Amino acid sequence: MKKIGILGGGQLGRMLLQAAANYPAETHVMELDPECPSADLCRHFTCGDIKDFDAVMRFGSNLDVITIEIEHVNTDALEALEASGVTVIPKPSSLRILQDKILQKQFYRDHEIPSSDFVITSAKEDLILNRDFLPAVHKLAKGGYDGRGVQIIKTEKDIQNGFDAPSILEKAVDIKMEISIIIGINEHGDYRIFPTVEMIFDPVLNLVSYQISPARISKEMEQVAQAMALTTVRALGSPGIFAVECFVDKNDNVLVNEIAPRVHNSGHQTIESCYSSQFDMLWRILLDLPLGNTDLISPAGMVNIVGESEHSGPVTYEGIDKVLDMRNTFLHIYGKKETRPGRKMGHVSLLADDINTISDQCVEIRNILKAKT
Amino acid sequence: MKKIGILGGGQLGRMLLQAAANYPAETHVMELDPECPSADLCRHFTCGDIKDFDAVMRFGSNLDVITIEIEHVNTDALEALEASGVTVIPKPSSLRILQDKILQKQFYRDHEIPSSDFVITSAKEDLILNRDFLPAVHKLAKGGYDGRGVQIIKTEKDIQNGFDAPSILEKAVDIKMEISIIIGINEHGDYRIFPTVEMIFDPVLNLVSYQISPARISKEMEQVAQAMALTTVRALGSPGIFAVECFVDKNDNVLVNEIAPRVHNSGHQTIESCYSSQFDMLWRILLDLPLGNTDLISPAGMVNIVGESEHSGPVTYEGIDKVLDMRNTFLHIYGKKETRPGRKMGHVSLLADDINTISDQCVEIRNILKAKT
Repeated sequence: MKKIGILGGGQLGRMLLQAAANYPAETHVMELDPECPSADLCRHFTCGDIKDFDAVMRFGSNLDVITIEIEHVNTDALEALEASGVTVIPKPSSLRILQDKILQKQFYRDHEIPSSDFVITSAKEDLILNRDFLPAVHKLAKGGYDGRGVQIIKTEKDIQNGFDAPSILEKAVDIKMEISIIIGINEHGDYRIFPTVEMIFDPVLNLVSYQISPARISKEMEQVAQAMALTTVRALGSPGIFAVECFVDKNDNVLVNEIAPRVHNSGHQTIESCYSSQFDMLWRILLDLPLGNTDLISPAGMVNIVGESEHSGPVTYEGIDKVLDMRNTFLHIYGKKETRPGRKMGHVSLLADDINTISDQCVEIRNILKAKT
Repeated sequence: MKKIGILGGGQLGRMLLQAAANYPAETHVMELDPECPSADLCRHFTCGDIKDFDAVMRFGSNLDVITIEIEHVNTDALEALEASGVTVIPKPSSLRILQDKILQKQFYRDHEIPSSDFVITSAKEDLILNRDFLPAVHKLAKGGYDGRGVQIIKTEKDIQNGFDAPSILEKAVDIKMEISIIIGINEHGDYRIFPTVEMIFDPVLNLVSYQISPARISKEMEQVAQAMALTTVRALGSPGIFAVECFVDKNDNVLVNEIAPRVHNSGHQTIESCYSSQFDMLWRILLDLPLGNTDLISPAGMVNIVGESEHSGPVTYEGIDKVLDMRNTFLHIYGKKETRPGRKMGHVSLLADDINTISDQCVEIRNILKAKT
């Protein structure tokens, strides 16, 4: 039985472990927090820092395959493990590109992948030099996550909010819609494309408010987006699950925004809406088994359950009963003991025939279901 | 967060725990074997004997709710726990009836539930007194499981194989088909009926060879069977998941064979074929949440992966690649380290539009996929 390790123990790891129990795999997880969502569902839990070279080396040296559920890991260690014969999925070479927004944007440019214009900045002063480039979005090259490390710089007045560290300044896109295309690809180049997801954002938290799949785009636009996503993933040259997040602008151009080299929030509803979920698919890739079927069982929606503002402490949930009383709603609670404003505590997926019904239900669920203290 | 305990740590517990991770529940498992399929997937594992009064009392006294994944547990302890305020699902009173085949048959008779004729025997000699009743099936009142504790007594010659302990002798039924109806029912009396399952048996092992759902029976027969199953479950007067296994005889009479007061082998395919699986449904019942949707997403089949004869020891699997290369096949390996002849090591579910295609594919999978040493 293959020994498979996951760096990171959050909710993505938890859902990976739920899927792992179907396969002949011995599961290992490393994460600093022993109370993390993945701790109870793996065979071996290691309390350790995934950003620490030695910790990752110790954890990985005994494994057959190692993967990630968050990008912010020690890539030097993964490279050393790969060199020593451990299978690392995704490849550290692809991680290097995607961990750094400067390298990521240059990668798009080098491969002629449509993406927003950008300039590289190393300090706040660079924003003043590029004031003609505004309105724009300032993104820290490294360490951003879930809305952190991103500042909207509309006018010169906002420059004070910029980052004093290596960053990119991306030309603001006149966004009509944000979509995500998740692709699973194995070491032989076999791939599966999941149905396109349309994400509706919360403008305050800069987090997904809810999402629906399939996206409300034309067949033609879907084909363009899928082809672009596939080109991008192939250019990365690595097996794995890749979430390609795209903007559709007001002129219906599709632009790659960013790529996550792992299972992704935008794929949560695939657990119920596809024959093979993104989590199931990653195990097939890790174990070198035939890929699953990404056909849509039903149109779907997904609502993140995020901690209510002004509530920090042991969590209680309000409204679970009402939500599960709705037809074909599916609860996923991540087992986090404490809630904090904006923290992802769980999600609800739902299936229905009509995409507008789904959209309405998502809004309703968001109003009903609360993570509070 | 409610503390929920499961007595038994086999594959049914494992699949329950996969589903549990979606809900706000702290999971506890007790089982003698620390290497059992459930050990890695629960919050708290207790190594203990589920047949031992003191062990069950110690395990259960700290829980909010306790359930089972096998009937052979200490019911006295469950009764004491129930009296002390722990919610026990299924109720010990229903367990008492179903743990004992004599009480079970008398229960059917008392409630006018169609079932095969029977006589009660206490020793082998009783079979000679009842030779006019042959051909019949001799079943141990207590302790039978997965084909153990059952002997077919066709003629007087077979009487030597009978049991020298309290048993029932059931009149042989001229079986046309075996079906199973799984019902989930909560403490308020709300219930859901899963699509009827048709089981195809291996005559040698007396284990299910494969099963398909929906069963190939008329709408009328399905209604009769469902109504009878519901009457039976209601008469038991307990919340829980109940698998009602029935014979259809050559005259199209539907007779209850036996009832399992728990998630059951005949419901494995509900993970993929129904919106809410039997495992998901039990958590909704345990946590007193609204029941799920048992509508069929697609006709389905299920093949148990049982240990090859003449193979005992550390397991290896043959044919997983080929099986997963078939469209919409789903692997479930139970994580048992050692295989033994006839031991349930895993199962494969499959979805397809046509029930005869499913039947053919089940036979094919059975020939391809092997659990060997």
